[in-house]
Amino acid sequence: MEIVGTHTVNIHPFEVDFKNRITLPLIVNHLLNTAGIHANERGFGIQRLNKENHTWVLSRLAMELKNRPKCDETLRIRTWIENVMRSFTLRNFQFETGEGEVIGYARSIWAMIDTATRHPVSLIGQGIEEYIHQKDCPIEKPGKIIIPEQSAQSSFVVAYSDLDINKHLNSAKYVEHIIDALPIEVMERESPFRFEIEYIEECHYEERIDTYWTQPTPDEYVVALSKGSEKMACKCKITFK
Amino acid sequence: MEIVGTHTVNIHPFEVDFKNRITLPLIVNHLLNTAGIHANERGFGIQRLNKENHTWVLSRLAMELKNRPKCDETLRIRTWIENVMRSFTLRNFQFETGEGEVIGYARSIWAMIDTATRHPVSLIGQGIEEYIHQKDCPIEKPGKIIIPEQSAQSSFVVAYSDLDINKHLNSAKYVEHIIDALPIEVMERESPFRFEIEYIEECHYEERIDTYWTQPTPDEYVVALSKGSEKMACKCKITFK
Repeated sequence: MEIVGTHTVNIHPFEVDFKNRITLPLIVNHLLNTAGIHANERGFGIQRLNKENHTWVLSRLAMELKNRPKCDETLRIRTWIENVMRSFTLRNFQFETGEGEVIGYARSIWAMIDTATRHPVSLIGQGIEEYIHQKDCPIEKPGKIIIPEQSAQSSFVVAYSDLDINKHLNSAKYVEHIIDALPIEVMERESPFRFEIEYIEECHYEERIDTYWTQPTPDEYVVALSKGSEKMACKCKITFK
Repeated sequence: MEIVGTHTVNIHPFEVDFKNRITLPLIVNHLLNTAGIHANERGFGIQRLNKENHTWVLSRLAMELKNRPKCDETLRIRTWIENVMRSFTLRNFQFETGEGEVIGYARSIWAMIDTATRHPVSLIGQGIEEYIHQKDCPIEKPGKIIIPEQSAQSSFVVAYSDLDINKHLNSAKYVEHIIDALPIEVMERESPFRFEIEYIEECHYEERIDTYWTQPTPDEYVVALSKGSEKMACKCKITFK
């Protein structure tokens, strides 16, 4: 089994926005599938974990892209494990066009939890270490996202279509709700961008989630999802270059 | 070029619901991509139409499936043109597993419109006729859906992620909003089903759409989307067998 996993997707008409570019939630979706396939093929994916009542939880993700690819283009995503610690593993990604031009990178931090207790499980001795790979991923790690104090501007209720197999708001759907909370102009920008997200709380079916956003500088948007005024569920930052 | 088009998709973890089955909106999404690829490859897809300021509009769709495939399974969709009239073309679909077992069929009715005037364009002489194919599609055509009188139970506002390339609510996202309007138990049912949808009005960015549903019989759900109390935007019926 190769140390680096590769997943290739052709971008179809129903995966692009009105700018003819693949949407950000779908890029995250493809990235998560790339991670899932890589882990399954190497024996530490949810196919094995489900039997052991464990699951992977995405904690943080940072992604930098020159731009979002267009309809009828090909997006190739490569992934590898950078490191494994007791509580976290670092997984990196490289994005390429169908012709092999590198158009971006991503870094992600994952934990494994027990599906019954929701407590973390040690990642040592799970067969992940042998896939650690030293490959350059020239973007900054996901950092701490500072949310300016503010009141909620909108809200949504977690619906059936938002749910993953564990019946929680799925990681790509957080991104969809974040993007939908922002003014549409944000997704009309064509310059290179960095997208960073920190997952804090699981969101359940029919929970009401408040959304907030601010624009601290002209090229920077910060979005928060929270349960009521106190309990932060997710923080996100998008920066254009 | 073969007369029947084939599109094969592998079902990934982020495409299934909490029952581990591919969601209905995603089946519709894959079906629409299958149609789009078939038409593009044969010279009457949106790649050509966009240059002529024309576009395809899905009017009605009926689909019958034994069940929704699961994660890690393969869904193969075949499509062909049944007939072409002046204002409409009939396009059919067959659904198969990766092993070639037929698990369902769909029938759809499409019009072509001028993107500026939104008026229908004649389909005669567009190069579609030569792809008419006589192949069995043993399900009933999409029929008229009767909506019982009722008041709206919920509503949504058309967001960025709902939009297609023409900046209208995308055909698969209608289905997502319909499913989300229904009680979650509907999607837990495991029996064969028929899904039928009638697209009536285009929905635009930031429009508020009301949703209604009723259950005329234990195995039948009817959903309507409307703009206010008068203007119906979409009707849908799901029947379990």
